Amino acid sequence: MIQGIGASAGVAIGKAFVLPNWEWSMPETQVNPVDLAKEFERLYEGIKTSKDEIEYIKREFREVVGPEESSIFDAHLAILDDPVFMSEIRGIIERQYKAAEVAVKEAIDHFVAMFDLLDDEYMKERAVDIKDVGNRLLKHLLGAPEVTLPSDTQPYILVAKELSPSQLAHLNPAYVLGIVTMMGGKTSHSSIMARALGIPLIAGLENKLQTPVQTGDFLIIDGDNGYLIISPDEATAEHYRVVRDRQREKREQLELLASVDAMTRDGVRMRLAGNISSVKELDMALKYGAEGVGLFRTEFLYMDRQSFPTEDEQYEVYRLVAEKVGEHPVVIRTLDIGGDKHLDYFQLPEEQNPFLGYRAIRICLDRKDMFQTQLAAILRASAHGSIKMMLPMISSVEEVREAKAVLQEVKKDLDQRGIPYNRDMQVGIMIEVPAAVMIADLLAEEVDFFSIGTNDLVQYVLAVDRMNEQIAHMYHPYHPAVLRMIRMTVEAAHAAGIGVSVCGELAGDERSLPIWLELGVSDLSMSPQALLRMKHRTLNTEAAKAREVARLCFTSRESGENEQRLTHFLEQAVMEKVFKQDGVEPA
Amino acid sequence: MIQGIGASAGVAIGKAFVLPNWEWSMPETQVNPVDLAKEFERLYEGIKTSKDEIEYIKREFREVVGPEESSIFDAHLAILDDPVFMSEIRGIIERQYKAAEVAVKEAIDHFVAMFDLLDDEYMKERAVDIKDVGNRLLKHLLGAPEVTLPSDTQPYILVAKELSPSQLAHLNPAYVLGIVTMMGGKTSHSSIMARALGIPLIAGLENKLQTPVQTGDFLIIDGDNGYLIISPDEATAEHYRVVRDRQREKREQLELLASVDAMTRDGVRMRLAGNISSVKELDMALKYGAEGVGLFRTEFLYMDRQSFPTEDEQYEVYRLVAEKVGEHPVVIRTLDIGGDKHLDYFQLPEEQNPFLGYRAIRICLDRKDMFQTQLAAILRASAHGSIKMMLPMISSVEEVREAKAVLQEVKKDLDQRGIPYNRDMQVGIMIEVPAAVMIADLLAEEVDFFSIGTNDLVQYVLAVDRMNEQIAHMYHPYHPAVLRMIRMTVEAAHAAGIGVSVCGELAGDERSLPIWLELGVSDLSMSPQALLRMKHRTLNTEAAKAREVARLCFTSRESGENEQRLTHFLEQAVMEKVFKQDGVEPA
Repeated sequence: MIQGIGASAGVAIGKAFVLPNWEWSMPETQVNPVDLAKEFERLYEGIKTSKDEIEYIKREFREVVGPEESSIFDAHLAILDDPVFMSEIRGIIERQYKAAEVAVKEAIDHFVAMFDLLDDEYMKERAVDIKDVGNRLLKHLLGAPEVTLPSDTQPYILVAKELSPSQLAHLNPAYVLGIVTMMGGKTSHSSIMARALGIPLIAGLENKLQTPVQTGDFLIIDGDNGYLIISPDEATAEHYRVVRDRQREKREQLELLASVDAMTRDGVRMRLAGNISSVKELDMALKYGAEGVGLFRTEFLYMDRQSFPTEDEQYEVYRLVAEKVGEHPVVIRTLDIGGDKHLDYFQLPEEQNPFLGYRAIRICLDRKDMFQTQLAAILRASAHGSIKMMLPMISSVEEVREAKAVLQEVKKDLDQRGIPYNRDMQVGIMIEVPAAVMIADLLAEEVDFFSIGTNDLVQYVLAVDRMNEQIAHMYHPYHPAVLRMIRMTVEAAHAAGIGVSVCGELAGDERSLPIWLELGVSDLSMSPQALLRMKHRTLNTEAAKAREVARLCFTSRESGENEQRLTHFLEQAVMEKVFKQDGVEPA
Repeated sequence: MIQGIGASAGVAIGKAFVLPNWEWSMPETQVNPVDLAKEFERLYEGIKTSKDEIEYIKREFREVVGPEESSIFDAHLAILDDPVFMSEIRGIIERQYKAAEVAVKEAIDHFVAMFDLLDDEYMKERAVDIKDVGNRLLKHLLGAPEVTLPSDTQPYILVAKELSPSQLAHLNPAYVLGIVTMMGGKTSHSSIMARALGIPLIAGLENKLQTPVQTGDFLIIDGDNGYLIISPDEATAEHYRVVRDRQREKREQLELLASVDAMTRDGVRMRLAGNISSVKELDMALKYGAEGVGLFRTEFLYMDRQSFPTEDEQYEVYRLVAEKVGEHPVVIRTLDIGGDKHLDYFQLPEEQNPFLGYRAIRICLDRKDMFQTQLAAILRASAHGSIKMMLPMISSVEEVREAKAVLQEVKKDLDQRGIPYNRDMQVGIMIEVPAAVMIADLLAEEVDFFSIGTNDLVQYVLAVDRMNEQIAHMYHPYHPAVLRMIRMTVEAAHAAGIGVSVCGELAGDERSLPIWLELGVSDLSMSPQALLRMKHRTLNTEAAKAREVARLCFTSRESGENEQRLTHFLEQAVMEKVFKQDGVEPA
């Protein structure tokens, strides 16, 4: 039994398939000068194929894990357009009469060595990117085959030194029981993707194996505890088979809840909606019983393109989503780029602190043409369903008024064009900047609803970038200051009689339920994957008891105390095995 | 009369001295291979001289404008240690038999061209830095003289295409009446330095002059309005002479206020202290009548060194400051690095959002050895004056308790060593993270005083990095959310009976006085340059009237409204010419 990092939960039992490390073999002879043109042609052909492939992987990856994570591929595409990298390659072909693949290899080595030398994290990341892209280009130039994964035989546990995003995107989840990687950790791309796909994964095993795993070895992965077991004895295997089957059974039982109303044991009705970035995610949310869409991130409509999407293009998507959702509401968030999200065709400035920078509504109010187009598309779609519009990153009353003025103009324009729309379409705002919390009473007079975006709010309130490993442990959604801000926001909404929901990650954290019950928030929106767990939690919670726990949190001084208290309350429920005993019946 | 950018206020009248653009002349012959060693020797000699010079300029610059702005020189020093840049230079000498200066020139051109090609702001800034440093190195290799400024003749107005930080650092303010630059704007280094030195400066005149200014031309600079006047007629010159003399007179009258108590007309006593980074700044603060030091930034003790300062080294400085200040309090802030402040010998990780990252107390609690040393030095100095200690970037009760536990250990250690200190030394915290405001009541039970750091607080509350040009206009210290947070903090302090002061830039903004009077905050700490203006403002304000204005601000919905209201109240006072009419007498 070897201890690694449990990067994606679950148990997997099966035979290993070990991914071989690919070795390049280069042509050694020089190119005849009269054939140089052919080498250039091969180079350009290889670049084009590589770009197409990256675009494809990017789309695949984004469908599974969302737009944030897939942005790495933009950097890869940019390298294939980089004039310095490309002129280096061309120079080697031209002046040294070398074959395209040799020139690519030498250029990669040159840049990687150079960037590695600079003692600078930014440069080092660029070096990794150049290596990854360069290897892809090499693969096409050498005609090297994709490493074939055994997809038509029995399912296997994949073992690799490291999985690149492209290898991951090509995995068929139906045939991969689990994954073991020597490198990586909880936040590497393979781990993120594995979690999204529900595939157990153990990482960080380098130097921990006495002998390397061989294809055909019998393995057990315990993703919850980070164990890898090679050639287990029968007792261990049997133990894990039971665990695996219980997990599978629980998953299947959870899926039965999709059509059940989310109501606490003592009759408090919650409405659980989905956060989505694409139609594919919407389908998943609906499958898991989402009562509408609480957050439609429209960024994906703007990505993977050469120019802004037209009004018609956007309208078609918004309408499709509204129609699929039917009677339930769909909250469309207007474009939220900047920060860590960028568009190929819209140059944003490099920023020292992009989270405190030019993003979301700040860009939209600067670029009214683009904003008007989106508002027109949303308004038009509002004729086909229960669509609401939501503005991100609001920090002042002035911004709301300015945005509403633009909406007014767009309505006038639609009237002139004789296009129907819902004249009473609700307009809400994200509450994610601390300033918005502090003036929530003033903002409540301007809008129809609030949606609390806990991810950014926590970051700003605590001044903690949660992607920063040095301080990620300080990112505490249950910090007393955060809870007070959430309460201020909810109280302001209730006082003004407007709606208030939560759409940050906290909404999908089962431990948070007591907070919402105590505050009287019944609308939560979360990632599709979290819907069934949260519903299960709701069905097995007594609101009165939960509120007692929440009240203790609201008077606490410490984040750790709150987290413990809420975790304990959750675990207690699990220990009572309420689910199994009460056997909630599907409707 | 030509309209430029008024980047540093004030009127200057005098003859122009035009700084010539230096042209390099390179040796054209190749180096004899046997002499290569000599070229290397020259190269290393030039690098060493350049480094020494940069270190010197950095110190000079920092004394005038503070540690934030002087950090650009760290980047310059790093380039002279950059292995890639250096190996490029060496390679050209070695393989192409070129002279050291030619190699440097070609390496600069190569890297600048390469970084410029990459469409990336970060890279472009590196290109500018490489150019600047490379030119300095070239200057030493070519033995080119510093461009001589006429320092022994009559004072002049300096005209230049662009002023480099090094040129600025060499200026003798006594001989420079004003500055005109073709390039640059309000935030360029020359502008920042000119403001700190009180020298009028007009920038951004490129393409606005029909004929270039010549040395000896008679010029007038109106820095308040951004006008440059070449060869003015006598009436204009006379008009500006009157303005200049009035400004000078006002400055002299202000200086008479240094020893006057800061009290409003109706008897509210304010205590104005200084924010300092060095003993030089302390002297300035005391000259301008500071009642103690409200913020001693200790970072400068840690900079320009090869290792952390020892306990004794720090103790000597803290004691010197305490003794100079005498009976008034000195608030020593513990080390606040990270964010945009770095130390040569303490490697911090590259961060995506350094303002939301690993900094200040977060580093100190991680690196307790370093923290203990500083606390021991502060405690020892507390035996020699009225020293208080202040913790930056506090966001939770836990952090305060942890820091106080470290302080307790250090006290025990001093007891064992038999070293005296003030057992009741007050411990306070900066209130600059929104979380601290939200739990100010809880924090007030843990500490002896609060000091509100408005600069960071405003940035976090509004999610606006004020150094980011794209959104700098959104940085509103008078935003309703900010005012409410300030009020929450003050009320929590008053309720707990602990001290509360303000040490951010807002404290030195004359318009803010009504806010402090309304809230009952009487301790303000500001840059030495702001002290006399703020005292003058206090002496000429009626607290009762000011409070009325402040109360309107606290119920307002908009930043712009508040700013207008406070500016209007200030201008009204100026229009009443209270200063001249009432002629406040120095004590």
